[in-house]
Amino acid sequence: MSTKKFLLSENDIPRAWYNVVADMKNKPMPPLHPGTKKPLKPEDLYPIFAKELVHQELNTTDAWIEIPDEVRDLYKIWRPTPLVRAYGLEKALDTPAHIYFKNESVSPVGSHKLNSAIAQAYFCKKEGVTNITTETGAGQWGAALSYAAKSFGLELAVYMVKVSYHQKPYRRSIMQTFGAQVIASPSMSTKAGRKILTENPNYQGSLGTAISEAIELATQTPNCKYTLGSVLNHVMLHQTVIGLEAEKQMEMAGEYPDIVIGCFGGGSNFSGISFPFLRHKLTEGKDIRIIAAEPASCPKLTRGVFQYDFGDEAGYTPLLPMYTLGHNFAPAHIHAGGLRYHGAGSIVSQLKKDNLMEAVDIQQLDTFKAATIFAQSEGIIPAPESSHAIAAAIREAQAAKESGEKKVILFNLSGHGLIDMAAYDQYLAGDLTNFEVTDEDVAKNLEAIKDL
Amino acid sequence: MSTKKFLLSENDIPRAWYNVVADMKNKPMPPLHPGTKKPLKPEDLYPIFAKELVHQELNTTDAWIEIPDEVRDLYKIWRPTPLVRAYGLEKALDTPAHIYFKNESVSPVGSHKLNSAIAQAYFCKKEGVTNITTETGAGQWGAALSYAAKSFGLELAVYMVKVSYHQKPYRRSIMQTFGAQVIASPSMSTKAGRKILTENPNYQGSLGTAISEAIELATQTPNCKYTLGSVLNHVMLHQTVIGLEAEKQMEMAGEYPDIVIGCFGGGSNFSGISFPFLRHKLTEGKDIRIIAAEPASCPKLTRGVFQYDFGDEAGYTPLLPMYTLGHNFAPAHIHAGGLRYHGAGSIVSQLKKDNLMEAVDIQQLDTFKAATIFAQSEGIIPAPESSHAIAAAIREAQAAKESGEKKVILFNLSGHGLIDMAAYDQYLAGDLTNFEVTDEDVAKNLEAIKDL
Repeated sequence: MSTKKFLLSENDIPRAWYNVVADMKNKPMPPLHPGTKKPLKPEDLYPIFAKELVHQELNTTDAWIEIPDEVRDLYKIWRPTPLVRAYGLEKALDTPAHIYFKNESVSPVGSHKLNSAIAQAYFCKKEGVTNITTETGAGQWGAALSYAAKSFGLELAVYMVKVSYHQKPYRRSIMQTFGAQVIASPSMSTKAGRKILTENPNYQGSLGTAISEAIELATQTPNCKYTLGSVLNHVMLHQTVIGLEAEKQMEMAGEYPDIVIGCFGGGSNFSGISFPFLRHKLTEGKDIRIIAAEPASCPKLTRGVFQYDFGDEAGYTPLLPMYTLGHNFAPAHIHAGGLRYHGAGSIVSQLKKDNLMEAVDIQQLDTFKAATIFAQSEGIIPAPESSHAIAAAIREAQAAKESGEKKVILFNLSGHGLIDMAAYDQYLAGDLTNFEVTDEDVAKNLEAIKDL
Repeated sequence: MSTKKFLLSENDIPRAWYNVVADMKNKPMPPLHPGTKKPLKPEDLYPIFAKELVHQELNTTDAWIEIPDEVRDLYKIWRPTPLVRAYGLEKALDTPAHIYFKNESVSPVGSHKLNSAIAQAYFCKKEGVTNITTETGAGQWGAALSYAAKSFGLELAVYMVKVSYHQKPYRRSIMQTFGAQVIASPSMSTKAGRKILTENPNYQGSLGTAISEAIELATQTPNCKYTLGSVLNHVMLHQTVIGLEAEKQMEMAGEYPDIVIGCFGGGSNFSGISFPFLRHKLTEGKDIRIIAAEPASCPKLTRGVFQYDFGDEAGYTPLLPMYTLGHNFAPAHIHAGGLRYHGAGSIVSQLKKDNLMEAVDIQQLDTFKAATIFAQSEGIIPAPESSHAIAAAIREAQAAKESGEKKVILFNLSGHGLIDMAAYDQYLAGDLTNFEVTDEDVAKNLEAIKDL
């Protein structure tokens, strides 16, 4: 075995984020005001988000946006992250493919989410915000934001999807150890939550509902802003540090990826790893396949439609152009809580529409099988979310074996699964199942949004 | 904030382990056969341990022992680990001290234990062993050995201390995900376990008991050896990669530590961080304080006696010269399960006797207070074990503040606490307590071993 990890120095932490929108021929369609159906102006978003983040959100012209020193300084806690040649996995699969993964699991909170959490907390602090709110699914984003908020002295309230609140109690403890308040969603603390609980007292929550609650609290609390861990353009922007580092590291390895893979919930880690490589495709016509791996139980990219829809369940957000299953779609309780979201961010949706990327859907049992192969061959127990990317990478490596081609595959290991061991327990005990989404389910939820 | 992490390349992974015994004027006294009370010969240990490990155990002359390429290759998965300047913690404490920590928590299994697990599994495999056994307290060692065993195709049975088996079920799941068998100890599967359960059916186990069970299974199974995660000389040897890297990294930082601190159970991470610096004291007369931080509820270094004692509860091991509380000492159920061991390894015991190092005891609540300060200022939730080192480092930093001295403090962050969140939950809820050990307790247990 030769060099396994490709490491950069703190000096190599990117100095600017990459805004892929600037290089897209077909820009994403704009977010619309749900009442007037007119494109949003920045001031429409100021009540919800920090101003600088709004400007990043709507920026369609600047390809590079400088990373503030204060943010880069905190990135130094764990960045640059290693790029790893997965010799162990290659051997286990007996494939001619070369498999690389970017290891974002080395972040102190265990996932890539800290890349945007620090940026968002910084910009909120900079304009004098004192309190922030957010939602979290599996708790990866909430954990990251809890530490980021503490670093900048902000008070944080997190609405955590109820099914994850119970499945993953220790992510709640992590948030509390960092000093955040955590509320199971739906809750009685907001109008949106009360409405849902009244109609369906046993509803186990979704990211869409938790977003509604967090936005409602933010807009009704003085000096408080809302923050989001995925879907929005500025989140994708911050996550590009992943791919920008990986670009340099693939050069160190002397290879260029034929295929880049990320798991897909709202798009944050997928965009992070892939946009810097997509840039070569957009600006230099480079031949590269980019694959989003989504859960078969929440198949917006593979089975949803492209149209305007709300980002949340209650309809508080602007209308966003997205591949969606309908904002009322209630995903099955898979352990990959971070992927249980009904829609894809606007940028990714446009890219998918323009065939600049692909999507595959993966069943839950396939993800845990892939995770176990990976753990035993690479030593890292992956997050259930990241295991979707691993499963997709394994498929491609097996295809390469069949065709005898030496493909170079790069995937993002967005996080580790050490807080998800209850899920592994169930898998080892044979208690996990797949979840099927029927065509009727999909049609029913899409019918409900056809006039948006 | 300037550079935070001091990083080495894979090339800088040490090529030899450091055997401090070779440089000690007073060598540790030899292990004795419990029947004859004569010093053990290598062949006495062959039934229990791989031969190469026995030779390392008894080697008193070679200061450097080459690390095999196969072991270095697996070290590359996560080594070299970062040395971190803890600017956040310094600021939180408002201290003039410069605080550094060696971050062993970045290992894929979350602790330093993998350093020796890989080495032990390798030497077992090399001489044709097919099955190995071990004990584990909190599960850090068991998790590490599970991955190491899988890497070399060895079958592994782990006896896990019962209180931890229930406190930390997810470390059990980690071991099982890597393919190991895990048994709660005391168990009915061994004579030693049955004897204890018959006398005391509710006994929650101890490392001493689990060691007895693992040794018994190893000696009664064909082609099977026993492995141990701490206490023994060869384990300390393997862990010196920590301090050898830290030595180079402190040079990069342009500083030299006045104080080196490790938490203390049997001695593995403490020895790992400190022996390479102790070398400067032994061979160059360098002025440096070396501090072991042990739990107040298991105070062998601060309140035990130096004498020969068994390493396990049933008396299967050789007699070892150690600071001990008596091999029947049953430590309170603190969350730092990895520190619940009655004795200190022979090398450390001799060093302590010769005043070449110091020891301090820390109460459980102090460790969680220190852990929370550290988490909020550095972003990493530390293992309850490691939090003893953090608490000791904070004491020294506060002393430096009072005296106005710019001390340089280095401690080992032996692992993260992401699998220990149940303990943090209890702490945040105010449900954790300290445990006092009375002088009568200590005297009673020491009385029982006075004729060994």
